[in-house]
Amino acid sequence: MERTTTYKPTILIVNDDGITAPGLANLIEAVADLGEIIVVAPDSPQSGMGHAVTIGNTLRLVKVHLFEEMGIEAYQCSGTPVDCVKMAQDILLHRKPTICLSGINHGSNASINVIYSGTMSAAMEAAIDGIPAAGFSLQDFRWDADFSIAKKVVRTVTQQMLGSHLPENFLVNVNIPKVSEADFKGIKVCRQASAQWKENFEKRVDPRGNDYYWMTGKFVNNDMGADSDLENLKQGYASVVPVKFDLTDEVVGSWIRRNWEVEE
Amino acid sequence: MERTTTYKPTILIVNDDGITAPGLANLIEAVADLGEIIVVAPDSPQSGMGHAVTIGNTLRLVKVHLFEEMGIEAYQCSGTPVDCVKMAQDILLHRKPTICLSGINHGSNASINVIYSGTMSAAMEAAIDGIPAAGFSLQDFRWDADFSIAKKVVRTVTQQMLGSHLPENFLVNVNIPKVSEADFKGIKVCRQASAQWKENFEKRVDPRGNDYYWMTGKFVNNDMGADSDLENLKQGYASVVPVKFDLTDEVVGSWIRRNWEVEE
Repeated sequence: MERTTTYKPTILIVNDDGITAPGLANLIEAVADLGEIIVVAPDSPQSGMGHAVTIGNTLRLVKVHLFEEMGIEAYQCSGTPVDCVKMAQDILLHRKPTICLSGINHGSNASINVIYSGTMSAAMEAAIDGIPAAGFSLQDFRWDADFSIAKKVVRTVTQQMLGSHLPENFLVNVNIPKVSEADFKGIKVCRQASAQWKENFEKRVDPRGNDYYWMTGKFVNNDMGADSDLENLKQGYASVVPVKFDLTDEVVGSWIRRNWEVEE
Repeated sequence: MERTTTYKPTILIVNDDGITAPGLANLIEAVADLGEIIVVAPDSPQSGMGHAVTIGNTLRLVKVHLFEEMGIEAYQCSGTPVDCVKMAQDILLHRKPTICLSGINHGSNASINVIYSGTMSAAMEAAIDGIPAAGFSLQDFRWDADFSIAKKVVRTVTQQMLGSHLPENFLVNVNIPKVSEADFKGIKVCRQASAQWKENFEKRVDPRGNDYYWMTGKFVNNDMGADSDLENLKQGYASVVPVKFDLTDEVVGSWIRRNWEVEE
């Protein structure tokens, strides 16, 4: 007797722009038929939250009905993107999902932005927990950005993730350029460009006469390497940068052993 | 004619436990005579803030008089540890300090804690900006912890940093064990242990009958490698882990190029 087993992967979907962000709805639409979807997203925008966790405050987790028509369970969480991943596992799933997808972020998370990004931190949290994960970001900050190319990239990457026996600690930072269909060149594996933000704080005075500041910044990229994510995005490719969370720098380690007085 | 130049380095001191934390005062005391010190610390505890930055809200930066007797300028900032580093440079120093020291944190930042730690994120922010940086953490959460060994380690590491021509992107995660003078073995260069937090959320009901949660967690370490930070801390060493912020994982990158259909 033959038997056909339909394997249905569980896909945990998170983001940092919050439960109502169009980028989240686009991510869900792109992969809805590829598995059993569960959505846990912050109840308010959490951009720039990095890998923050809520340890000194209470957390709320509330079911919402936004994606019920698609048969998809969704929850909003009062915490950070990383809190969403932790709560999804411990309170809702009681098991590891097959994969975790984060995004689609409104705005680039290429290069050094991986460090500040709530989108990527949520994906990294999943990867630390042993769940293969991908963060997706579109190089367009607008709430009404066009996600059509991004959705195709999300679907391709997700299918490849589900169809592969992935290596341990699998985590990718996927950025999608803001280009027309005609100018989109495909998906390319890249390295993190060496760029940084230069901050300028704008000083203002409040109605009571006290100073306060707004953070503003300029993104400076001096890395023109052909294999960098920024360079490939500029050329119309979606960049896939595989990301580590073992941050040990062996080069500096050897240097310290050679140059400082430390125990062997 | 002979001329002696006294070079006075500028040392930026930050933390994540806040401006009033004993760990901060201990760090200042340990290095006060080694340079011109400027302190910028959060106005409230910011543990677990990771690399969060304040982009959707205003920021305050106010001078405080806590360390005036030592002739040291100090400021409290309403933002995150990373905000402190950014504001110090743009608003107060208008230049790069010689080095940046962060801590001394009340509690370990060894192993995967480097990812969640505000202490280490502040140091990393400085390193991204091209400032050699070190984060210091004591394996004792108590407010009245004994910082005497930690202070010696801080001083030794700082002197070595100031006395060396450091390699680019210099950033170290220094953890100090909670041991007696007799059991302290010295300073050792290590790698980040592969460990993780397993969360358990404790559910409670508020006075209005709605559920809320507290995050609790258990730290799980299955990495028994002799060169890991956790193993060396256990043996009585202070661990120095050099830290990268180029997170590109070349191993996974090669795997994707071999196994997925991506552009060459």
